[in-house]
Amino acid sequence: MKATVTVELKSGVLDPQGKAIQHSLEALGFAGVEDVRVGKVFRITLKEGIASRAELEARVSQMSEKLLANMIVENYAVKIED
Amino acid sequence: MKATVTVELKSGVLDPQGKAIQHSLEALGFAGVEDVRVGKVFRITLKEGIASRAELEARVSQMSEKLLANMIVENYAVKIED
Repeated sequence: MKATVTVELKSGVLDPQGKAIQHSLEALGFAGVEDVRVGKVFRITLKEGIASRAELEARVSQMSEKLLANMIVENYAVKIED
Repeated sequence: MKATVTVELKSGVLDPQGKAIQHSLEALGFAGVEDVRVGKVFRITLKEGIASRAELEARVSQMSEKLLANMIVENYAVKIED
């Protein structure tokens, strides 16, 4: 089974990396870019048949809160695929 | 309009950051993690009404190939939302 965790900065938090990319896109001639924000995506492969879908989702949420996301400034979303 | 670009390492390319996360998860007591791979997600806000959906998709693909992704070792996927 595969889980995808997307970790992104909370909306109020400044994203200098995103701003730098926005300016680079403008410098490259791409007009109409109003904002860029950068996040991380983790593709986690889990051993088959060790837990139900709901259990896996709970476990991956725990992984996110303990390691993958900084809950002070970031949000995360978990998606379980087969 | 919003575009989401997901940039991930091609499947044959080693991902030491993902491996480090996998080992950290095991060290934290999470069993059954077979693989972790890390990618980036870019949320791009584009000015409304400047182009059709198909044109936007083409433009964001260009942005990805020119700046966001390293096409030698990475793949990208573009999703346009309203």
